[in-house]
Amino acid sequence: MKSSVLRRIDELMPELTVLFDQVARDSSDGKGVTRDAFGPRETQAAKILATFANKMGFETTYDCGGNLHVARAGHVNDPPKIIVASHLDSVPVGGNYDGLAGVIAGIATLRVLEDKGPASENLRVIGFRGEESPWFGQAYLGSKLLLGELSHADLQTLRRFDTGRTLGEHLQQLGMKLPDGKLQPLIPLNSLKAYFELHIEQAPLLEHLGLPVGIATAIRGNIRHPYATCLGEYAHSGAVPRHLRHDAVMATAKVLSFADEYWRQLINAGHDDVVFTCGIFQTDSAEHTMTKVPGQVTFSTNIGSISNQVMEEMEAAITRRAAELAVEHGVEFDWGKRVGTPAVNLDTSIMRLANTIGQEIGIEPHQMPTVGHDAALFQRRGFPTAVVLIRNANGSHNPSEHMDMNDFALGASLMASIISAMI
Amino acid sequence: MKSSVLRRIDELMPELTVLFDQVARDSSDGKGVTRDAFGPRETQAAKILATFANKMGFETTYDCGGNLHVARAGHVNDPPKIIVASHLDSVPVGGNYDGLAGVIAGIATLRVLEDKGPASENLRVIGFRGEESPWFGQAYLGSKLLLGELSHADLQTLRRFDTGRTLGEHLQQLGMKLPDGKLQPLIPLNSLKAYFELHIEQAPLLEHLGLPVGIATAIRGNIRHPYATCLGEYAHSGAVPRHLRHDAVMATAKVLSFADEYWRQLINAGHDDVVFTCGIFQTDSAEHTMTKVPGQVTFSTNIGSISNQVMEEMEAAITRRAAELAVEHGVEFDWGKRVGTPAVNLDTSIMRLANTIGQEIGIEPHQMPTVGHDAALFQRRGFPTAVVLIRNANGSHNPSEHMDMNDFALGASLMASIISAMI
Repeated sequence: MKSSVLRRIDELMPELTVLFDQVARDSSDGKGVTRDAFGPRETQAAKILATFANKMGFETTYDCGGNLHVARAGHVNDPPKIIVASHLDSVPVGGNYDGLAGVIAGIATLRVLEDKGPASENLRVIGFRGEESPWFGQAYLGSKLLLGELSHADLQTLRRFDTGRTLGEHLQQLGMKLPDGKLQPLIPLNSLKAYFELHIEQAPLLEHLGLPVGIATAIRGNIRHPYATCLGEYAHSGAVPRHLRHDAVMATAKVLSFADEYWRQLINAGHDDVVFTCGIFQTDSAEHTMTKVPGQVTFSTNIGSISNQVMEEMEAAITRRAAELAVEHGVEFDWGKRVGTPAVNLDTSIMRLANTIGQEIGIEPHQMPTVGHDAALFQRRGFPTAVVLIRNANGSHNPSEHMDMNDFALGASLMASIISAMI
Repeated sequence: MKSSVLRRIDELMPELTVLFDQVARDSSDGKGVTRDAFGPRETQAAKILATFANKMGFETTYDCGGNLHVARAGHVNDPPKIIVASHLDSVPVGGNYDGLAGVIAGIATLRVLEDKGPASENLRVIGFRGEESPWFGQAYLGSKLLLGELSHADLQTLRRFDTGRTLGEHLQQLGMKLPDGKLQPLIPLNSLKAYFELHIEQAPLLEHLGLPVGIATAIRGNIRHPYATCLGEYAHSGAVPRHLRHDAVMATAKVLSFADEYWRQLINAGHDDVVFTCGIFQTDSAEHTMTKVPGQVTFSTNIGSISNQVMEEMEAAITRRAAELAVEHGVEFDWGKRVGTPAVNLDTSIMRLANTIGQEIGIEPHQMPTVGHDAALFQRRGFPTAVVLIRNANGSHNPSEHMDMNDFALGASLMASIISAMI
């Protein structure tokens, strides 16, 4: 039998579906959806959601970072006990649900809780701006502003890849003005007891398991080298024997083969949360040909795991092996800048509650790690944090991202039920 | 004590050095030399050499493929018994000696032989056009025209990469007109007893051995895939686990690692003439990012050996392994067009003669395989063919290609001595 929360969410689904479609239409770029961070299409999404929330009788406002806040009428400036949030922007040519689903689930949660009584005044729904990293080369900008984790210097140096304008200029264009001096949190956080985020899964793992809803155990960290190079020496491919070559492609290919084998062994040893990716691998179009030993490769590496130790060990093993291969192949590796974020374990008490409540209402979430979301910042600040994941057949960050509205209803119901029990 | 031939060549060296410099100056592109196939800079090189040869009292002419012919006065239309040739063009931004050294060595040989008597009337020196493959995507165009190995259809379909004009249009612009109907050899070949080519080594192998001159045992063939692709699927690099990936970079890197190991084992088993190169390896700049599992790779492969069987076996082993890796990584390999030329063994009787004469005159050539030259076509047609190689510290096809004039004098002397003994 369906729980009362799920029945209420089910009743809301027709109008929520229209809402999803309306935002999609206004974010369309012809191929997918593009809601540009701190730009017009993201603002349009915020306006549509604010109008919807106002029609439901909720109060809305924007903080001076441009984030949308929704709360029970008369309470939008109260210090929140629970925040339910996700982000308004998308990657360029992305899908409609990544981010948006969490903000809409937040509004639905507020609706369900308000029906149940005055405790909903402790709930704040937030639609963050600029979570996706392609826009400004850094993720979580809206939530960082909210938490006081950016500086005025950041506003002047972070620059959007397509407009060429700084974050500060984008905020100004939105009519937002941040106070002078060291930036502080934009809302009081002293009453905050928990942070919740519903998010579409970014991989098709739940799809492969045949399960609609997951709950995240941890947010994977990463260690990344965005601009690594291997420097060898161009030479005649037909004439130069193996021992006189400085072949940058071969040396790099063998580093990757090593990383794959190391990864396979980690998985066999039970570390099945680890990921390794070389997304960029480029010989130099200006110099390479089929008939030259390649003298240079530009490439990226990206290690992810819920264990910082496992990531560090893998990184060390890869660079050790690369140093050996550099000698063998007469090349030099320059790993360039190392960037990344540490892994974060999410709150175990909320996870236990999610399992108990899930069993009661028949929506048992699959426990699994997830990737970076605004949620990571709140958990790192010590606020108990939970991420509810929704099945996605086609992965995210692409136009064919897919979310079944029934799966969304189940995930939103689970989240609303947990919050209802905590508030 | 120096042989009489070497002493005569030594006497010529000052004017030959000036000649090398004059051609270099007129071929300069600012970074290196560029003598464009069937174009103005190649023509300018031909003119400088013709003027030099005329001043020496030799007769010059052009065949209707644009190749420069030099012979003893009154004999430029005789059927030659021995051809000494190489090519006039260079790769884009190449070095000055690749090709040019062989034509100048031919003129020097003619000089030495004429001093020695009337037998020099049997010698023809040729400067071929268009030997380098980057220009029209195919090598040996001048010598193919000379041997009647191109068709009128080829003249209409081969197109220069930079001008966009066909080989036929380039010939027309040079004022060259080929006869209608099936193209025949442009000179009578029925008296031809041997073909000689002096060429700068394209690798620094002689440099590493500390030897000035080599003689080629064979011309390596090759099996090439200029436009191979690996097709996978783009996905979220942080979220998608290993077993759900279709990672085109990883699958291709592992094919290359396999090829390298196979190659290493061939060398250990004594096949030290084999070479393997992946000169081009490109993820798609329009779609790749550090944070996506890469969905596509474009790459090239190039196997070379003096053994056609070894090449075919290596090719088969690589494609078999790629098929296994395609299953393991959920990708597809499309090898595209396969091109290449078979390996050719060079004439052993001339090689023996070269060794005997080399011992007599104190210039013992190192026996070694070489790569494709115009010479390959003549040996394939059954004409006894020899290639004399000159030490090159920096490899060829680049502006820092280096030839010591003393090494050139030794190589040219060896060639002139062998020809002198045969003619």
